[in-house]
Amino acid sequence: MKNKNLDGLKLSLKLKEKYLKIIKDLPSKPKLVVIQIGNDQASNIYINNKKRICEDLKLGFEHLRYSSSVKEEEIEKKIKALNNDDKVDGIMIQLPLPSKFNSSFLINLINPLKDVDGLTSTNMGNLVNNIPFNVSCTALGIMEILKEYNVSLFGKEVVIVGRSILIGKPLIHLLLNEDATITVCHSKTKDLIKHTKKADILIVAVGKPKFIKKEMIKKEAILIDVGINRSKGKIVGDIDYLDVFKKCSFITPVPKGVGPMTIMMLINNLLNSYSKIKKDSD
Amino acid sequence: MKNKNLDGLKLSLKLKEKYLKIIKDLPSKPKLVVIQIGNDQASNIYINNKKRICEDLKLGFEHLRYSSSVKEEEIEKKIKALNNDDKVDGIMIQLPLPSKFNSSFLINLINPLKDVDGLTSTNMGNLVNNIPFNVSCTALGIMEILKEYNVSLFGKEVVIVGRSILIGKPLIHLLLNEDATITVCHSKTKDLIKHTKKADILIVAVGKPKFIKKEMIKKEAILIDVGINRSKGKIVGDIDYLDVFKKCSFITPVPKGVGPMTIMMLINNLLNSYSKIKKDSD
Repeated sequence: MKNKNLDGLKLSLKLKEKYLKIIKDLPSKPKLVVIQIGNDQASNIYINNKKRICEDLKLGFEHLRYSSSVKEEEIEKKIKALNNDDKVDGIMIQLPLPSKFNSSFLINLINPLKDVDGLTSTNMGNLVNNIPFNVSCTALGIMEILKEYNVSLFGKEVVIVGRSILIGKPLIHLLLNEDATITVCHSKTKDLIKHTKKADILIVAVGKPKFIKKEMIKKEAILIDVGINRSKGKIVGDIDYLDVFKKCSFITPVPKGVGPMTIMMLINNLLNSYSKIKKDSD
Repeated sequence: MKNKNLDGLKLSLKLKEKYLKIIKDLPSKPKLVVIQIGNDQASNIYINNKKRICEDLKLGFEHLRYSSSVKEEEIEKKIKALNNDDKVDGIMIQLPLPSKFNSSFLINLINPLKDVDGLTSTNMGNLVNNIPFNVSCTALGIMEILKEYNVSLFGKEVVIVGRSILIGKPLIHLLLNEDATITVCHSKTKDLIKHTKKADILIVAVGKPKFIKKEMIKKEAILIDVGINRSKGKIVGDIDYLDVFKKCSFITPVPKGVGPMTIMMLINNLLNSYSKIKKDSD
């Protein structure tokens, strides 16, 4: 059987080796601070993964955990202190926050230079204006996978299903900058299948297990599955992998596709921030 | 003959009346500063139009004109001075700049609160993050026309031809926020007509006179023509108005469509900036 997998895990390990070498030669240890409010189960897992990769790469890591009863002003004060702390290179707020918090207000308090998630308005706008600094990790991870496998985007029909700040919206601009034609679909799209069937490259981030079936794709399409859904004790994507496998030309598996790249792009952004901060203070 | 025109001129005059009343009651006079470098012919006309509307509305206006041999540092210094000048509420750089200047660097020096063009990364990112402050005038003008004529965007197929910072890119987010399905086409799109023919709402900003013909549109489509092309001594749009007229349901004429709304949205943004600056300094 032809290997159709776009192996994000393999690429992430290759990058890990590269980063390890870079980090070894740095004069000081880049440090990431993750702010968590509340006790979301998935967040706990994601933060743990971040901690582990930072330990592996001998990076500084601090997990600041607040109960959901914390006052927004306390978080505000803390972010400002971290912005001014020379020992801190990257700051991120683990999303989602409990609903009473104003996520975009808090995110925009982060100094854009230390915004390793690329979610501040400044970094999002820099991407739109084609002067990108840090870009959302999942979106960036997808671009790296496409690059690794020499997937040309020039003039291609790319359909994105999902319009989140973390994935769909930054991808629009990353892909437009590569001269793809972009269609953005979402929950209010009337005839989704009409669009998905025409995609040379289909990117799906909807959070619905095995949502995309073979009837919904074009023959030989390249499929990017951003879904991480728990179903019957297993992790499955938004694309029905076994169903589409024969019809597509390439696909990112779940797990071992986009997921491992997301976390590696966080390291990429942390190193970006570290270099820029050190350079600016020279 | 049915009146199919989406009359941007009429709407702009209605808004002008509204702004006049608002301005009359303000404690001080909002002021716009336009920075021009070089002597682009079209820019001269556009700046003159801005001057005239500011005079009509009894707003402050200053035109700073530099020769194309000016040093970038001089512009940089001036922008910083204008940022700190309490009497200045809005600053804009008339585009395009001569090619040796770094437009996005200069634009991003403008305090986002005074950025009446909505082109700084901060304001562009605020739009993407759905916390918009000032948004690009042409994109905003199009949204106001659609609103005035009660054009519902929910679930509609909207195709944008053109991906500029001024029009296509901000429109993506304005339209996504209204639950439309968006396709962005451009010069590298392979089968343009396939997309334009499917649009419930087609927005064209390519700068090619009468580029869109009736074969390229869907029956009953709503057409938004952003083009301002000089052809045989006349101003014509990117859509062949007479050719498509029978087939479409509504269309913005050129002139008197999007154009007059662009300048009125500049006034909208100037008043926005004025209010926000005064409120913040309270």
